[in-house]
Amino acid sequence: MRDMKQDFPILSSSKNPIVYLDSAATTQKPIQVLDSIRKYYEESNANPHRGSYHLSMMATDAMEEGRNKVKKFLNVNTQKGELIFTKNATESLNLVAYSFGNYFVNEGDEILISIQEHHSNLVSWQRVAKERKATLKYIYLKEDGTFDYPDFLSKINHKTKVVAVTHVSNVLGFINPIKDIINVSKKYGAVTVIDGTQAVPHLSVDLTDLDPDFYIFSGHKLLGPMGVGGLYGTKELLDRMPPFLYGGDMIDYVEEQETDFAPIPAKYEGGTQNVASIVGLSTAIDYLQNIGMEQILAMEQDLVAYTIKKMKELSFIEILGDLDQPRIGVIPFQVKDVHPHDVASILDQDGICIRAGNHCAQPLLKHMGYSSVCRVSFYLYNTREDVDFFINKLKEVRRWLGYEA
Amino acid sequence: MRDMKQDFPILSSSKNPIVYLDSAATTQKPIQVLDSIRKYYEESNANPHRGSYHLSMMATDAMEEGRNKVKKFLNVNTQKGELIFTKNATESLNLVAYSFGNYFVNEGDEILISIQEHHSNLVSWQRVAKERKATLKYIYLKEDGTFDYPDFLSKINHKTKVVAVTHVSNVLGFINPIKDIINVSKKYGAVTVIDGTQAVPHLSVDLTDLDPDFYIFSGHKLLGPMGVGGLYGTKELLDRMPPFLYGGDMIDYVEEQETDFAPIPAKYEGGTQNVASIVGLSTAIDYLQNIGMEQILAMEQDLVAYTIKKMKELSFIEILGDLDQPRIGVIPFQVKDVHPHDVASILDQDGICIRAGNHCAQPLLKHMGYSSVCRVSFYLYNTREDVDFFINKLKEVRRWLGYEA
Repeated sequence: MRDMKQDFPILSSSKNPIVYLDSAATTQKPIQVLDSIRKYYEESNANPHRGSYHLSMMATDAMEEGRNKVKKFLNVNTQKGELIFTKNATESLNLVAYSFGNYFVNEGDEILISIQEHHSNLVSWQRVAKERKATLKYIYLKEDGTFDYPDFLSKINHKTKVVAVTHVSNVLGFINPIKDIINVSKKYGAVTVIDGTQAVPHLSVDLTDLDPDFYIFSGHKLLGPMGVGGLYGTKELLDRMPPFLYGGDMIDYVEEQETDFAPIPAKYEGGTQNVASIVGLSTAIDYLQNIGMEQILAMEQDLVAYTIKKMKELSFIEILGDLDQPRIGVIPFQVKDVHPHDVASILDQDGICIRAGNHCAQPLLKHMGYSSVCRVSFYLYNTREDVDFFINKLKEVRRWLGYEA
Repeated sequence: MRDMKQDFPILSSSKNPIVYLDSAATTQKPIQVLDSIRKYYEESNANPHRGSYHLSMMATDAMEEGRNKVKKFLNVNTQKGELIFTKNATESLNLVAYSFGNYFVNEGDEILISIQEHHSNLVSWQRVAKERKATLKYIYLKEDGTFDYPDFLSKINHKTKVVAVTHVSNVLGFINPIKDIINVSKKYGAVTVIDGTQAVPHLSVDLTDLDPDFYIFSGHKLLGPMGVGGLYGTKELLDRMPPFLYGGDMIDYVEEQETDFAPIPAKYEGGTQNVASIVGLSTAIDYLQNIGMEQILAMEQDLVAYTIKKMKELSFIEILGDLDQPRIGVIPFQVKDVHPHDVASILDQDGICIRAGNHCAQPLLKHMGYSSVCRVSFYLYNTREDVDFFINKLKEVRRWLGYEA
């Protein structure tokens, strides 16, 4: 396989060489994506839906082609569900929390989320629970750090209105049993809100098979540009819920005191949409599909196995979570005696980018007994050479601070 | 002055020559803006605020430099106010409608808006009025199409909680007496929400002088990329209001049931921010300032005067609103006997892009007795040659449909 780094200017620059190991935070962008954004602005830019001229129709077409691309990528059943564009996964999750939570969650209802949730799928439900006088309950972890399915079964009941769970943990990288969670939730009449932000870049996500009520993802974590995210929802719920952002393009007819809203997806896409980022996302999906999602996951898991093997040789490294569970390309770890921020800062001196902190998942870290951890995360442009360089420098971190290696 | 069209690839292409007269919907982007977006992705891309490595700090710096650039551009009093980044003006207005409207507007309160409002500053308040059992009242127009200031004075009272008015009408192009409106509103204790979407690209907006509670603008209407808008708010209100989008980066500390939020501006910037678009916006502001805002308005007003003079020679053209009032580069008009969509479609055959429809302002159009109108809108790249070409083709529209010219 050719060296994919050549497609990523920031990774192949000789001026400021970096080893980028923070793709779970955001991915770098291939030149194909950057070219497509530029081409859009140079050839087709206009406000979509609003103009009665060719250029505006080109912008509208670019947006709708992007929507169809995403739907096919996630195998959306187009009879059953629709895809809404948002600015990022946080907006997608808040759209559900406002337009479903504010109007369909009532006093005495229960909202069931997992302790693994990113703050965006957690704080948003704290707000709904408080405002609607509902109870917010947590599903915890098994000893090995994976989803505690019996705990889920013990906590869901007929009062459960929402089950909000991440498909893949952004800290641990473990893949949750989402299909089972969705199926059980349906039996109790609970609406499922699945955060696919860390799943869509790494797995073949099949929404026809999973059949959730809502499924969320982010464009910038799968080689796409910043400024575009997605929300899959069933037409049944999207039709019943009130809109979220009120403004242009989401209306049918406005009187002084009353408004008829446009049908979905426009109903949830008020204001000028970010067509340029949708075009970039569409190109990113082409790039991923040219490689193949199975191939991408296999490459990541090869890197994970290789890295874990190397880390195990270092007595001062503790890896979080069971080492035999399948993970996407994410490894959280601690360096004995060294604060994660110091680990990241020391590695940064050699151009190695890793994340240190709470990873927007403070309740998970607290539950596991940490306030901060290090995390490396891989994507398709990473190589064993990256890992070797990282491991060699990791060996020096303790020495750098005066500890024995 | 050199031909600015050379800076705009879409306007200087010989392949598909266009005359773009729809800048009030969205502007085209100069090559400097496109270059800066690309440079960001090629050299500095990372998730801001989240990393403890140099690249992430570069992304954070790029974002904060953008914020400072916007603050200086709008002459924000940094002691008094703060600038929040959003995805577009619609999100900015909805942020205020949710975080202020949902929590501070109460039963019996009045919300006073003008009939000129774009749907985003109108439907968003319809929602608040309904949900909070408040009354939504309208300020109408004088005979000449301008803001009816006596009507405003007759409608504001001590029950008025919100005064939401556009700085410049997106249909008529007239500049509203915003400073007086803000001063009177303050006397009644009403919070002012000023939609500056059509003002910021064309006027020297001085927020220290105007001193509103909230002021909204959009990046893509001032040569910036899609995907970035702004909300100015007073620190006093931004500190008191609850957040809007709940997620990463907007928290201080998250427990399972309670969260402490970050101080402003981060409190309102949940989720990964669109740094690339902020960088592009920053470059767009540089471009505008290199020309000078006074110069831009003077160029637009010269084009408006020239166009109105030419239009007056055409007996079948009706221009909306008084012809002697100062306007930004916006002219709404009708062609006798011809539906606005037909006008736009016929002009489009010659590559002339004008807008036809309700301009996201149905109540305004209905109030003036129209369901649809044509609109041309200019920006700094337009020339008298554009106007001549447009006027010549406009002369043919009626003939094309079999009417006498």
